[in-house]
Amino acid sequence: MKAEIQLTPEQKQDLVERAKQARQWAYVPYSHYPVGAALLTASGKLYDGVNIENAAYPTTICAERVAVFKAVSEGERDFVAIAVVTEDGGSPCGSCRQVMSEFGLGLHVMMANAQGEILSECSLADLLPRAFNSSSLE
Amino acid sequence: MKAEIQLTPEQKQDLVERAKQARQWAYVPYSHYPVGAALLTASGKLYDGVNIENAAYPTTICAERVAVFKAVSEGERDFVAIAVVTEDGGSPCGSCRQVMSEFGLGLHVMMANAQGEILSECSLADLLPRAFNSSSLE
Amino acid sequence: MKAEIQLTPEQKQDLVERAKQARQWAYVPYSHYPVGAALLTASGKLYDGVNIENAAYPTTICAERVAVFKAVSEGERDFVAIAVVTEDGGSPCGSCRQVMSEFGLGLHVMMANAQGEILSECSLADLLPRAFNSSSLE
Amino acid sequence: MKAEIQLTPEQKQDLVERAKQARQWAYVPYSHYPVGAALLTASGKLYDGVNIENAAYPTTICAERVAVFKAVSEGERDFVAIAVVTEDGGSPCGSCRQVMSEFGLGLHVMMANAQGEILSECSLADLLPRAFNSSSLE
Repeated sequence: MKAEIQLTPEQKQDLVERAKQARQWAYVPYSHYPVGAALLTASGKLYDGVNIENAAYPTTICAERVAVFKAVSEGERDFVAIAVVTEDGGSPCGSCRQVMSEFGLGLHVMMANAQGEILSECSLADLLPRAFNSSSLE
Repeated sequence: MKAEIQLTPEQKQDLVERAKQARQWAYVPYSHYPVGAALLTASGKLYDGVNIENAAYPTTICAERVAVFKAVSEGERDFVAIAVVTEDGGSPCGSCRQVMSEFGLGLHVMMANAQGEILSECSLADLLPRAFNSSSLE
Repeated sequence: MKAEIQLTPEQKQDLVERAKQARQWAYVPYSHYPVGAALLTASGKLYDGVNIENAAYPTTICAERVAVFKAVSEGERDFVAIAVVTEDGGSPCGSCRQVMSEFGLGLHVMMANAQGEILSECSLADLLPRAFNSSSLE
Repeated sequence: MKAEIQLTPEQKQDLVERAKQARQWAYVPYSHYPVGAALLTASGKLYDGVNIENAAYPTTICAERVAVFKAVSEGERDFVAIAVVTEDGGSPCGSCRQVMSEFGLGLHVMMANAQGEILSECSLADLLPRAFNSSSLE
């Protein structure tokens, strides 16, 4: 695991703002709980995401994963920080933690409310202790 | 369901080519089965996607869904056609069919091999007969 | 694919009745759409299932899959028929079709309403044409 | 969250043994990584589970979830402990943590290797800090 990169308060607020903007595109006809996310890569790019629901609930996807998937599909593999914006500053679900962990546990995670206030922040390692990873499969 | 938009052979080949290009970014350390997808929206934009695997297999995602998620996260809701490129022209899995169906069954689906030859094509309605949808939940 | 086994009307009604009974245990605090399923194996055993939701919608599971998972976890691999009971006779989602297809497309699928009336029935092959399967991965 | 129930060493070993036995039924043609799980409910019953894979990797399911789904489908909602047996004592993935958390974070989780040795144990709360739950959706 690499040392965590320190973000400036401005960089943090930029990420949160981008997640807040993305949130307008959430597709949430069933939960009415829109989520926006924004991911910063080591290459300096930003990728945003929203939650996208389905009448068959299991095929719903979360905002955090959409942001990660977008980045990976553009060739990115190295991530620095992710901001998640919900009504109440809710945290990423266990599946999102698992997906993000595939690319390193040093990721900095910020949880903000609809007003853009960061209510809590920590590393992905804090959110997914004893993570299951590919070393088990070898 | 809207009438299906007719694509020209050039438009079809463009979509397949984009899916073929995207395929290089597939993250497939477990299956070694890279998939690329490209989605054309009614607004004329293209969104590509790749499959992205995880040591915990259930959190893997398919290329078709990544392309749809990218488009939805940018505010798109109206899709015309999707091309899927695999080694052998394999078809979308049931979960991808379900995710795509949320936005209409008229979507034109093309399955191409690694050389970019379209081996089969049909509408999403053909791939997901009697689709489960939100009318059941009301 | 093996020839489909013919079920008697009594066997069909037994399966539907079991799915109807199981439905009481559905855990659906979010959708309020309970589903029950019952699976008949070639060995003559019945396995039931219900849908089980989660605050993180993507980790929700469907009744059909729970029935299949229970059977597989007991060593069963050969399935004859499945009955699904919902309020309105809704059909299995694409993900459930994919999961069931791993064990053969000859499965007979019956969709019944809350009164236990079979509104439609067909083979899994009819519900998942051109199914993606392991032959693509080889 | 309820106070955690203390298990005797015999109860722990019983759970691990059951998970070890179940493991033989894992359906793992793609990962060749069989997992067995056994869940103890507050009512004193045991439910086992195995991982069940699919050619479309995202529709794979884990052993822990199969055990929980079986229990819930029988009307159980109150769980005491779960044992997971893998080759190397691997831990539950993030999605399994999320599914288990729906029914309480006090669950005792034991991770054992193929010889049945418990390599680590903790509460679900330790594995899923700041869990996303239904309070966010209200």
